[in-house]
Amino acid sequence: MQFTARTSANGVIERDFTVGEVPGVLWSPASGADRSPLVLLCHGGGTHKRAPGMAGRAHLLVRDGGFRVVTLDAPGHADRPRTATDEREVAALSRAQAAGEPVGPIVTRYNADIAARAVPEWRAVLDALQELPEIGADGPVGYYGINMGTAIGIPLIAAEPRITAAALGQFWPEPVLETARRITIPIEFALQWDDEHIPREAGLARFDAFASKEKTLHANAGAHKELPRFEAASAVRFFARHLVPA
Amino acid sequence: MQFTARTSANGVIERDFTVGEVPGVLWSPASGADRSPLVLLCHGGGTHKRAPGMAGRAHLLVRDGGFRVVTLDAPGHADRPRTATDEREVAALSRAQAAGEPVGPIVTRYNADIAARAVPEWRAVLDALQELPEIGADGPVGYYGINMGTAIGIPLIAAEPRITAAALGQFWPEPVLETARRITIPIEFALQWDDEHIPREAGLARFDAFASKEKTLHANAGAHKELPRFEAASAVRFFARHLVPA
Repeated sequence: MQFTARTSANGVIERDFTVGEVPGVLWSPASGADRSPLVLLCHGGGTHKRAPGMAGRAHLLVRDGGFRVVTLDAPGHADRPRTATDEREVAALSRAQAAGEPVGPIVTRYNADIAARAVPEWRAVLDALQELPEIGADGPVGYYGINMGTAIGIPLIAAEPRITAAALGQFWPEPVLETARRITIPIEFALQWDDEHIPREAGLARFDAFASKEKTLHANAGAHKELPRFEAASAVRFFARHLVPA
Repeated sequence: MQFTARTSANGVIERDFTVGEVPGVLWSPASGADRSPLVLLCHGGGTHKRAPGMAGRAHLLVRDGGFRVVTLDAPGHADRPRTATDEREVAALSRAQAAGEPVGPIVTRYNADIAARAVPEWRAVLDALQELPEIGADGPVGYYGINMGTAIGIPLIAAEPRITAAALGQFWPEPVLETARRITIPIEFALQWDDEHIPREAGLARFDAFASKEKTLHANAGAHKELPRFEAASAVRFFARHLVPA
């Protein structure tokens, strides 16, 4: 793990790093406890580790929850090299969007490919972070990712016993609905009631599949991109309930 | 409006009152703003204006939200006289529960009868409260009620333009699903994903029926009586978003 830059704004320290070829940002409180629970925060398709939706959520988690937060550039995203699959699927997605055709079959197929590459990266980054004294090998770990962040999160959570709570949302049941049936940690899952891409029944089936005894669905009226901002604050409280010792 | 008693505990002043034959409690902050938004808080079937679930929510709303809160004893509940319908339906409900038969047909029918009596009572109490200087004729008003509180709330909200936000939940679509289709105010609606009384599809249909542009469903894993306590804190934040001027 190589730290490459450090900035600070509004009570949040941002440290750029790389683990192998993977670039990330560690967001930490400028003051407060020496140690705090860690939240793995994964961006959606087509964005990056410092996109506004990521920076905004990271600041909320650090400032309102006292958490440490890590974001990564996903495989094929930002400045990372693209594979032939990346090039082909991004082109297929652009064609479908331009033609007004359903994107679901392409997104689910492509995100499964990205997830297969991203899961070992997240696990290696978690290994590296747990060597830092402010995180530690036995501290609580949560996962937060919607859209592609959920496509990556489901196989990651199923494979990774260190993650003990997850805020997810806005994804189709396919692929591997079966993977969700192996997940038993507390889940907060957001979907949009009038999502023009993900049929309502598909979103509900995805929520239903989690085997978790504690799980909460937040369904808001509105289209795919209209997820209300207050859901980010809700996720902070969800992690506070499950990651912070009483 | 006759005030009959006044007590104070933990920063909350409780004033017992009657409006006509209807007994209620007004819960207010012991200190703070001279005026604050009002929340009408309606209990569920078989309980009363000061049941633990009511007192707990009233204290949260007053202390965390700065609201004023009113609870009433519903028709046929607590010390209020019972009609022949009350006697017959309570007996029918007890028989169904003892026999392990579905309660839905009885509850929906009986609660419609209670709602027809309760709606004019709530409107008269709201008239009286708005004459108090600490509430005022033009202050924001919210409504909070689950189970029977939703059966009463839906016709009340449809009839009462002074109510501008409502937290509801855990009720069947029947009767008068059509009434919900006339409701356009912001709604937060809670249901239990594994409710043994209200089929999942029925709860989702009830949420779907509201014509509100802003509406949020909170569905939690668990049985009918396992609604998580954190949903009460969520309702306080919901009312803070919609009743408190920015």
